[in-house]
Amino acid sequence: MKLYTSHRAPNPRRVRWVMAEKGVDNVDFVEIDLLSGQHRTADYRAKVGVPHVPALELDDGTFISESIAICRYLEALNPEPNLFGHDAKEQALIEMWTRRCEIYLANPMMLNVRFSHPALAALEAPQPQVAEYSRVGAEKFMRLLDRQLAEHQFIAADRFTIADIVAAVGLDFARLVKYRPPEEFTHLARWLEACRARPAAKAGV
Amino acid sequence: MKLYTSHRAPNPRRVRWVMAEKGVDNVDFVEIDLLSGQHRTADYRAKVGVPHVPALELDDGTFISESIAICRYLEALNPEPNLFGHDAKEQALIEMWTRRCEIYLANPMMLNVRFSHPALAALEAPQPQVAEYSRVGAEKFMRLLDRQLAEHQFIAADRFTIADIVAAVGLDFARLVKYRPPEEFTHLARWLEACRARPAAKAGV
Ligand SMILES: N[C@@H](CCC(=O)N[C@@H](CS)C(=O)NCC(=O)O)C(=O)O
Ligand SMILES: N[C@@H](CCC(=O)N[C@@H](CS)C(=O)NCC(=O)O)C(=O)O
Repeated sequence: MKLYTSHRAPNPRRVRWVMAEKGVDNVDFVEIDLLSGQHRTADYRAKVGVPHVPALELDDGTFISESIAICRYLEALNPEPNLFGHDAKEQALIEMWTRRCEIYLANPMMLNVRFSHPALAALEAPQPQVAEYSRVGAEKFMRLLDRQLAEHQFIAADRFTIADIVAAVGLDFARLVKYRPPEEFTHLARWLEACRARPAAKAGV
Repeated sequence: MKLYTSHRAPNPRRVRWVMAEKGVDNVDFVEIDLLSGQHRTADYRAKVGVPHVPALELDDGTFISESIAICRYLEALNPEPNLFGHDAKEQALIEMWTRRCEIYLANPMMLNVRFSHPALAALEAPQPQVAEYSRVGAEKFMRLLDRQLAEHQFIAADRFTIADIVAAVGLDFARLVKYRPPEEFTHLARWLEACRARPAAKAGV
């Protein structure tokens, strides 16, 4: 299999992190240069369908895009360590937290970076209002997350799951604009440090 | 089990549609009035965690939010008809298309309605530019979808899946602002008509 990926881009990093946690070693990496627009070439679009990374090419030539769909596929092929849940209820709670972390934390933090980082001004006109609105929304959610992490070691369960990867990658990406979560969220800080200390956290950064 | 839901709201409708396809009949409905802010009361937030519908209350008192997490949970309990895929590869392709339909079609169409419908001005100041930008983005994705539907009866497989529900609910919701997809997308039109003709399409509207 081949993973079309870009160093430092947050969505591919989710997949790289999952692979590293599971010790997946039968996937080759194809580096795509987003700044020069390699993902927008006719060739890339014809294969993947959409101008995004990551995408996974299976050995039969099928392409799968969408980071979480790829991660879940890799879990089916490499069940341990389990990141998506053992039974239906656990799977539902993990998916609930993964989506919350995606929609209310990772996506807004990505918008914050995209619309405020000077080096990305070539891709997207800076919009301080969107950047600010996104950060404020994300911090509202961080309050909920901090309360959850006061009672649980990790976000969706008492073990590390895909929800932690999505949240940690979102927060890490915001380091590009020197963002740090408010210090009052002490449980969040403890959790983030634990995520960053995992050897697999180094993949794809 | 109990489903906290709101008539006409698109995210709960995904769950209602899944339930109707599967003939699930062991779930009670609790109607939440979004316009009067019932989902923002301390009581609702304490139970569900977030001020959103839908939410599913299990018999053990656990709450699950996030429409797609709820739908997948209902699939685990009621496997037929299959909406999320039989094997890992089919599941990955269905999740890929579901997420594409969500991110690039349903979400923008919801923003379009939210920022342009006069009756929603109480919730959200109308923003014609956001409404327009969202519609244009969604129509770009409709072109890809139309090409996919030229070759497949349904979006993600040659049978009806959760991807079709997400896309059709997104387009249906935009009828509130009298939106119709561009007529050039004839395969999309054929598919949408087939979705709307399903008996289960009437649930939660
Ligand atoms: N929902 C997609 C998002 C993929 C995505 O937007 N990837 C970014 C990189 S992190 C990208 O390809 N950006 C290029 C662009 O938007 O032009 C996923 O989760 O895989
Ligand atoms: N990602 C969530 C979205 C839930 C959501 O935003 N639901 C809307 C109704 S369709 C809602 O509760 N809106 C109330 C509000 O935003 O105040 C899901 O898929 O369930």
